Amino acid sequence: MINCFASDNTAGASPEIIQALVSANEGYAVPYALDDYSNMSDVIFSKIFGDVTVCYTLSGTGANVVALKAMLRPWQGVVCADISHINTEEAGAPEVITGSKLLPLPSYDGKIKAKDIDFYLDSIGTFHRVTPKVVSITQSTEKGTLYSVDEIKEICAYAHKHDMLVHMDGSRIANAVAALNVDIRELTVNAGVDVLSFGGSKNGLVFGEAVVFFNKELSKDYMTMRKQSLQLISKMRYVSAQFNEFFKNDLWLNNARHANEMAKYLAEQLQGVKCLSVQKPQVNAVFVCMDKILMEKLAKEFYFYETNPQIQEVRFMCSFQTAKEEIDYLVQRIKALAE
Amino acid sequence: MINCFASDNTAGASPEIIQALVSANEGYAVPYALDDYSNMSDVIFSKIFGDVTVCYTLSGTGANVVALKAMLRPWQGVVCADISHINTEEAGAPEVITGSKLLPLPSYDGKIKAKDIDFYLDSIGTFHRVTPKVVSITQSTEKGTLYSVDEIKEICAYAHKHDMLVHMDGSRIANAVAALNVDIRELTVNAGVDVLSFGGSKNGLVFGEAVVFFNKELSKDYMTMRKQSLQLISKMRYVSAQFNEFFKNDLWLNNARHANEMAKYLAEQLQGVKCLSVQKPQVNAVFVCMDKILMEKLAKEFYFYETNPQIQEVRFMCSFQTAKEEIDYLVQRIKALAE
Amino acid sequence: MINCFASDNTAGASPEIIQALVSANEGYAVPYALDDYSNMSDVIFSKIFGDVTVCYTLSGTGANVVALKAMLRPWQGVVCADISHINTEEAGAPEVITGSKLLPLPSYDGKIKAKDIDFYLDSIGTFHRVTPKVVSITQSTEKGTLYSVDEIKEICAYAHKHDMLVHMDGSRIANAVAALNVDIRELTVNAGVDVLSFGGSKNGLVFGEAVVFFNKELSKDYMTMRKQSLQLISKMRYVSAQFNEFFKNDLWLNNARHANEMAKYLAEQLQGVKCLSVQKPQVNAVFVCMDKILMEKLAKEFYFYETNPQIQEVRFMCSFQTAKEEIDYLVQRIKALAE
Amino acid sequence: MINCFASDNTAGASPEIIQALVSANEGYAVPYALDDYSNMSDVIFSKIFGDVTVCYTLSGTGANVVALKAMLRPWQGVVCADISHINTEEAGAPEVITGSKLLPLPSYDGKIKAKDIDFYLDSIGTFHRVTPKVVSITQSTEKGTLYSVDEIKEICAYAHKHDMLVHMDGSRIANAVAALNVDIRELTVNAGVDVLSFGGSKNGLVFGEAVVFFNKELSKDYMTMRKQSLQLISKMRYVSAQFNEFFKNDLWLNNARHANEMAKYLAEQLQGVKCLSVQKPQVNAVFVCMDKILMEKLAKEFYFYETNPQIQEVRFMCSFQTAKEEIDYLVQRIKALAE
Repeated sequence: MINCFASDNTAGASPEIIQALVSANEGYAVPYALDDYSNMSDVIFSKIFGDVTVCYTLSGTGANVVALKAMLRPWQGVVCADISHINTEEAGAPEVITGSKLLPLPSYDGKIKAKDIDFYLDSIGTFHRVTPKVVSITQSTEKGTLYSVDEIKEICAYAHKHDMLVHMDGSRIANAVAALNVDIRELTVNAGVDVLSFGGSKNGLVFGEAVVFFNKELSKDYMTMRKQSLQLISKMRYVSAQFNEFFKNDLWLNNARHANEMAKYLAEQLQGVKCLSVQKPQVNAVFVCMDKILMEKLAKEFYFYETNPQIQEVRFMCSFQTAKEEIDYLVQRIKALAE
Repeated sequence: MINCFASDNTAGASPEIIQALVSANEGYAVPYALDDYSNMSDVIFSKIFGDVTVCYTLSGTGANVVALKAMLRPWQGVVCADISHINTEEAGAPEVITGSKLLPLPSYDGKIKAKDIDFYLDSIGTFHRVTPKVVSITQSTEKGTLYSVDEIKEICAYAHKHDMLVHMDGSRIANAVAALNVDIRELTVNAGVDVLSFGGSKNGLVFGEAVVFFNKELSKDYMTMRKQSLQLISKMRYVSAQFNEFFKNDLWLNNARHANEMAKYLAEQLQGVKCLSVQKPQVNAVFVCMDKILMEKLAKEFYFYETNPQIQEVRFMCSFQTAKEEIDYLVQRIKALAE
Repeated sequence: MINCFASDNTAGASPEIIQALVSANEGYAVPYALDDYSNMSDVIFSKIFGDVTVCYTLSGTGANVVALKAMLRPWQGVVCADISHINTEEAGAPEVITGSKLLPLPSYDGKIKAKDIDFYLDSIGTFHRVTPKVVSITQSTEKGTLYSVDEIKEICAYAHKHDMLVHMDGSRIANAVAALNVDIRELTVNAGVDVLSFGGSKNGLVFGEAVVFFNKELSKDYMTMRKQSLQLISKMRYVSAQFNEFFKNDLWLNNARHANEMAKYLAEQLQGVKCLSVQKPQVNAVFVCMDKILMEKLAKEFYFYETNPQIQEVRFMCSFQTAKEEIDYLVQRIKALAE
Repeated sequence: MINCFASDNTAGASPEIIQALVSANEGYAVPYALDDYSNMSDVIFSKIFGDVTVCYTLSGTGANVVALKAMLRPWQGVVCADISHINTEEAGAPEVITGSKLLPLPSYDGKIKAKDIDFYLDSIGTFHRVTPKVVSITQSTEKGTLYSVDEIKEICAYAHKHDMLVHMDGSRIANAVAALNVDIRELTVNAGVDVLSFGGSKNGLVFGEAVVFFNKELSKDYMTMRKQSLQLISKMRYVSAQFNEFFKNDLWLNNARHANEMAKYLAEQLQGVKCLSVQKPQVNAVFVCMDKILMEKLAKEFYFYETNPQIQEVRFMCSFQTAKEEIDYLVQRIKALAE
């Protein structure tokens, strides 16, 4: 079963990252993120984002939980899209581990709009309800869509106006930056985002994510918070060394660009193929509606997700590792099976 | 500052482990522990322990939390030594993330005795108090001491008699096995332990621990529990590949043996040195009481912990990576400074 | 400001209940629900429901939390209507205090259907998602509607078929029993409900609710659970004495019947009044759509809630204490203001 | 079985309190603590304490939990005596409901000293450990002892110096005020206490406690916090009316004075009785060491607790309701049985 298109996390890690990990194995190092590799974290992220505090974590769910925990008291909640990763794919960790409630908004394309937040504004000052305190948006979204810089600005301004903070789940922020071709600051700190979960593992790392605190006041206790949230391993140098490499020669951005381009290429190749219709990809996900029979045949050879059974929509993901030949072979098989 | 004796986690990973990690990078793999490496986990652990279910986690605290979460309802508690890692070194995660209370017992050497549990037995059936449900012991302990097979058997029998379960924090279980020279089953499943946190990162892995469920009923929902407990990364193959290698050619045991032997060697070399007295090590930790002035001088060159200021006791840890030359140099410096 | 129609909890307590409370004040009593009044709880509830275990609590939210806590592990969730009290009016307590996630279903009239549960069935066996374990329904609902016996049976059968349990939030169960004119067992235990929150304070008690465990296995640790959930006062005799009185001469049922009849009377009186349209009440809530100007005028004299601004719908609640004269006066004022 | 000496909560409520409750039953009232009785809460407490915010709760454990929740983030902990009520008698609620860890200190007489806190000071800045943030002391203590004004001042000054807050569990604060014969401000706000749990139910109320926020910043979200902590009933007027009465004619203080005097009288009467030795009571608890045989005989007639089996110590509690005749009878029976 070919699984290279199932998700961007079926890929391995970039060779440079593996090499960085091997190099990091040399000698002894102070444990628990006090080593020389880890000491660079604020420096390398501040080059990209301006003055920030960074907290490396082990998993994307871990990053989101640490970020939210820093922003919330137990009686405060998180406004988010109903289909957001934190609401549907993290096994309840955001509620159970932060001890706060999520406040979902209906969303078709994974995005929410500033004025959607109105639905929960009434709850401010109503002690029967959780107080909305954080708005969490995903960039790029779970549906492969993008917020524009202006949309993010509008959400942040609206949230701040109502004494709320903004969290961005950026497990695929690099793909968004590559697609929108803007400085990452424009999408995040300059737009008003308070805390960012910066993704690593879907973009070429072995593992490791980063919580970036633009609002440094919120980061005050991050080290204890991280330990308590089970996101600290003793040998953090292996996480930090990966990030140090990630930002050399724009590896993080080049990886994302490649994934996006491959998705574009795949969509182009599928254009006009029988028994299917393909959406133009915004980042590295290609959504295709196809005949049931074709889907079933294809599912015997390739591992992929049906993302919307009602319209027979499936998803193919490209990654930094996706090769043109892999796409060509997929297209060839689809064409053959579509006959 | 020389930090090779500060802890067994200042070492890197075994070369074989790094090689396994590099090899695991080949090609695509199904994410979230459904890959071919991860599919081996129950098989390789069952070879060692008999029929068990294994849940890999990312950190030792993560392993302990998943283990305890599987055993507890919120109104049930964990009897443990006051100086146990779960009580003092995990930033409250066992309480906050499992949502249960720890019930500490005073302990001098890190060990508790079966009859110490009596202190909390009154709480069974007293609804004002948390019901003691789990006894958690550490093997080898935070003080470098060991439970004998008989002591573990006695604790387990006593716990089970009172409808309690037994958890063993085995972040250094390999050192215990090496020191006691017994089959690991004798120290765990055969002695009555229900769930074991099996340590990896202190014994030569990059990262990764394993929760071993001898009581398989308790493991039923481990996959959702692990995800919720932030212990699942998408590319779990990198954790699993390390464990697959760990059990080839007894690497796990040889690493521990080496660490223990080095500790023994260090203790021997320090015998009779001026201004200090050395305890005979049971595993890989060497406790030394030394003159204040010597300690201060040494602290300028070596990174180590003062474990008991009242008796001026410090700790030197050896690891799989410790070289005789490193010990010789430490001893040489101590002797020189003691003059 | 006249507030007798704002809610059924603006009323005081039934005179008989106050008298019972006064009588309970005599002499000394063993604290913490071990007194003679409290010892009757299982007996009096078993007369009504058959063999059950009862746990008195202090508030309705407290009852729901204790009920859910008994049924759930942290990685399991509660399927419920999006507008259910547990999801919107309990300040996040069901998530934060039980440590579990709610899984809301869209609902217009406060009811959910058996087949709506399908939406979450996929999550069973998907470790990225909370496992649906409890279905919680409200009878009568937050929208003043009723589940029929058959509807409850269908939900329970469907839930049990998928290894789920059923909780009924019966803060107004008495109104439902009165309205449907059936034995309460038909609506609850005989229909398959596992645990019921039986309401007291909205139906004539000073305070006090009861968690009724039909599934007695779930009640095993209820006393510790209750204490931990902050639902135990030392002088529980004052809660128990109220319930003992509540079931004498069918006070609980007569109170609810009166409230329902008053609602019916109010709706009849409003029939044909200018500038408004009235829905036929199913229990003790009367929903009326009225002209904005009328509503504003009325709001200067009476305290009531606008339940749906889009259709200018307001709610008038009747209670055991509502007098015909109070209704007549309300109707008279509405008519006068509508001119 | 005579249970009037088992605890101060075997008594009923003061007749004035019952009368206040009956009076509060008149008419309709806005629910959820927005009624006219409840609106007085800040006013009546500010008369006694100066400018404060008050949050009524239902139980003493509830008061402690709301108080602590207001002061803590999940990675912060509470330094307290090991035998404190929050650590041993609240079924883990302080940990499970606030989501924070307790940090117990050994205590013989229920008291801790400022310098005992040192034990946990090392944990500040150590991310492996919960950060001590609150010191909680009980006045009068679980052992019937008292902190002097100076001792409280010293603890508060020490705590504040280390950026910690002070909580006082005052479930028997009235007894302390009566015994020390000082203005309650001297024991609390003027001594530096930040938040006080002010006890009602052990001193003559039916139920009800009050969290008094001297540090008003901490009270900001108390209404949502209280609802979420299951401490809000709809008809809060019945709680508030009791407190309004409690402070008329110094009922709260007179009740406590009576209890203390009765304890003094009991101790005096037991002076010199055979087979026992009696400690001089500081508040309303009388501790007596007695012969095993006498204890067993007495236990057949009277319900009391053995508080320290090692020294055969039992406890007799007096309350606002204790009558001289009841004491005389107890003493008479003890004398008779001691023969």
